[in-house]
Amino acid sequence: MLAKATMQSSSPRPRLVMKFGGTSVANVERIKNVAQHVKREVEAGYDVAVVVSAMSGKTNELVAWVKEASPLYDQREYDTVVASGEQVTSGLLAICLQAIGLKARSWQGWQMPLRTDTQHGSARIGEIDGSGILKSFAEDGAVAVIAGFQGIEPKTGRIATLGRGGSDTSAVAVAAALKAERCDIYTDVDGVYTTDPRIVPKAKRLDKVAFEEMLEMASLGAKVLQVRSVELAMVHNVRTYVRSSFDNPAQSSPGTLICAEEEIMEQPVVTGIAYSKDEAQITLRQVADKPGVAAAVFEPLADASIVVDMIVQNVSADGKTTDITFTVPSADYARAMDVIEKRKDEIGYELLQGVQDVAKISAIGVGMRSHAGVAAKAFKALADRGINIRAITTSEIKFSVLIDVAYTELAVRTLHSLYGLDAA
Amino acid sequence: MLAKATMQSSSPRPRLVMKFGGTSVANVERIKNVAQHVKREVEAGYDVAVVVSAMSGKTNELVAWVKEASPLYDQREYDTVVASGEQVTSGLLAICLQAIGLKARSWQGWQMPLRTDTQHGSARIGEIDGSGILKSFAEDGAVAVIAGFQGIEPKTGRIATLGRGGSDTSAVAVAAALKAERCDIYTDVDGVYTTDPRIVPKAKRLDKVAFEEMLEMASLGAKVLQVRSVELAMVHNVRTYVRSSFDNPAQSSPGTLICAEEEIMEQPVVTGIAYSKDEAQITLRQVADKPGVAAAVFEPLADASIVVDMIVQNVSADGKTTDITFTVPSADYARAMDVIEKRKDEIGYELLQGVQDVAKISAIGVGMRSHAGVAAKAFKALADRGINIRAITTSEIKFSVLIDVAYTELAVRTLHSLYGLDAA
Repeated sequence: MLAKATMQSSSPRPRLVMKFGGTSVANVERIKNVAQHVKREVEAGYDVAVVVSAMSGKTNELVAWVKEASPLYDQREYDTVVASGEQVTSGLLAICLQAIGLKARSWQGWQMPLRTDTQHGSARIGEIDGSGILKSFAEDGAVAVIAGFQGIEPKTGRIATLGRGGSDTSAVAVAAALKAERCDIYTDVDGVYTTDPRIVPKAKRLDKVAFEEMLEMASLGAKVLQVRSVELAMVHNVRTYVRSSFDNPAQSSPGTLICAEEEIMEQPVVTGIAYSKDEAQITLRQVADKPGVAAAVFEPLADASIVVDMIVQNVSADGKTTDITFTVPSADYARAMDVIEKRKDEIGYELLQGVQDVAKISAIGVGMRSHAGVAAKAFKALADRGINIRAITTSEIKFSVLIDVAYTELAVRTLHSLYGLDAA
Repeated sequence: MLAKATMQSSSPRPRLVMKFGGTSVANVERIKNVAQHVKREVEAGYDVAVVVSAMSGKTNELVAWVKEASPLYDQREYDTVVASGEQVTSGLLAICLQAIGLKARSWQGWQMPLRTDTQHGSARIGEIDGSGILKSFAEDGAVAVIAGFQGIEPKTGRIATLGRGGSDTSAVAVAAALKAERCDIYTDVDGVYTTDPRIVPKAKRLDKVAFEEMLEMASLGAKVLQVRSVELAMVHNVRTYVRSSFDNPAQSSPGTLICAEEEIMEQPVVTGIAYSKDEAQITLRQVADKPGVAAAVFEPLADASIVVDMIVQNVSADGKTTDITFTVPSADYARAMDVIEKRKDEIGYELLQGVQDVAKISAIGVGMRSHAGVAAKAFKALADRGINIRAITTSEIKFSVLIDVAYTELAVRTLHSLYGLDAA
């Protein structure tokens, strides 16, 4: 024991953060399976911190009670109620780990502490004090089981939650704070695919994805990782794996590594195709082409908390009027139309047109930076299949097209083949 | 507003602690009803702290998960998991209070803090820091909604729970810490009765009960209040009401006051009749009547965590041997017999006899101190009805008889009438 302790203090073990979401901890049996995954990594020589979500369904139950108590609930009390879900899982996993011979203890957000700002319900992480966990690693060799999604607002000492999916963000932030070798996010899929395998059976699992690409994929509807967690991983350069908790714990496959661009040797031009069906398109015809018009359109929408995605405004032909097209989430379509209609005189447009059944298809790849004509190829391929493009936006590492929703699957398959992503 | 604030700071409002158990907060609708009870007291001019239990059934669910995770669970993790139940209720009640126009905020055990010793799972309260709540009363006029049953072990910063029914204890301790005018324990009954109304329809609700009497009643099976909470109320002289949460909040009846003996003007000789059916009787015949024998019998039972209740040892007739009779909870009967059998040679008895179907009937009243022959009347009355008394114990303010369980109801009714407790 003494020899071991001495060895540990002279050369600390590498650290690993593992994160398990709701379906991976849905019941005690599944939590025991998670314990086996953790054991594998401890035996591989890591000091492990595990971040857990609430058992699946629990958060919804708690949120429903809060809303029943009052639709106008106090966000701080919401956080108090909802954070209890992760608290339960953390204690149960610690017990399951102890039952298979590992030392373990649970850590709530306020116990580390993980300090947040005051935005209860969608708080941002300020600072994580990892010293308690590092001491526990060094002195006890104990696995740290961390309740995800939660922290403490230091001024008031109240519990604050990070918003839905915040456990991914907790995990990456903890990995940064502990200077972990990597952060493994366990999900119900075994990695990040070139596109949705339900639409394209030939979709391939990617071995590596650059942070920037993953960011675009996450925000474009590939629901594997929370956008914020990818941002955080990119800023702190946390090598993050997406892997499956449904694998046999004894021989878990590595999944997909999300890492810095430099770490990816052979960079394809396009890495993946994402799509989003929950889009609606709104067009204002013959808007006066003068300064302040865009603000007149988009400020009221922002005030109504409506997130505007694609915005297309052409240079006007006559120098007097122009058309403005933008997209909003389908769920906000009616409200957005209402906001614009009420401000018709203020904005000054001739005609308001809306279409609900539209989809956004995007191709993403850091390789686009160094390749010309990538998007042009897509426009031709889609036209060849009779798919009309309603709008186009491009950025450095992606382009998106807006099309009729009925053509979604055809468009995704077309682009997936076009850029050589189909599995052999 | 300014005038009100000034008035508050110059003369603080009287303080009240209210406690609501699991059935009173079983769902959000019931929690809204609790909020109405709280509103009544705020409008009556009190600064209110409300202590809440977990929603009924929740604690059992959490405990079942812990046991499924491992029968040999870590008590600290058990506390982490189980304390989440009260956390949920505290947040929900704070929201319900806000929804009806009251200021309110929730307080977890670690937030006050309520400090405990290290006995996780059945921790004792060390010290309660009420300063945060008092500040919140003075500055915000906010109702403090306190998660019962839980505190923090200050050395490790881990959550510690007070054991089953610990919310009563939390409430009384908070009342002492806040120097509250009184502590109202809301239950599913409307007060303390002279005996179990299911057995004796003529049982009466008592207006006042002395702490000492309530202590005997609580430990003798009248399951209204936790024994520890009554002890604490007695030590700190916290006037404690037992009242019903099922009353109309607008016209709630006062229930039963548990208070110092001196506060009760007309003290009856016997205040109540308690009974317990879960008893088993064990008798050792012809035990050597020498020093150390009692220890030889009862130490091994204590080591096996078996709580021995009544002990009867007669003076021996011959000066050589005696009989020892004692009772244990039915659930521990088999284990207790086993312990004694295994130590037959060590203890040195001739015969071991056990009876499982016995009940203990007790009469309680501080008035017994000043009245002779109270118990003797009972022995005659029971004999008149053909009820055989197996053993008798007495203390200053109560006596108990052990009888066959079949006669329980008859014996309770007999004593209830005998001491003039029947309602007119």
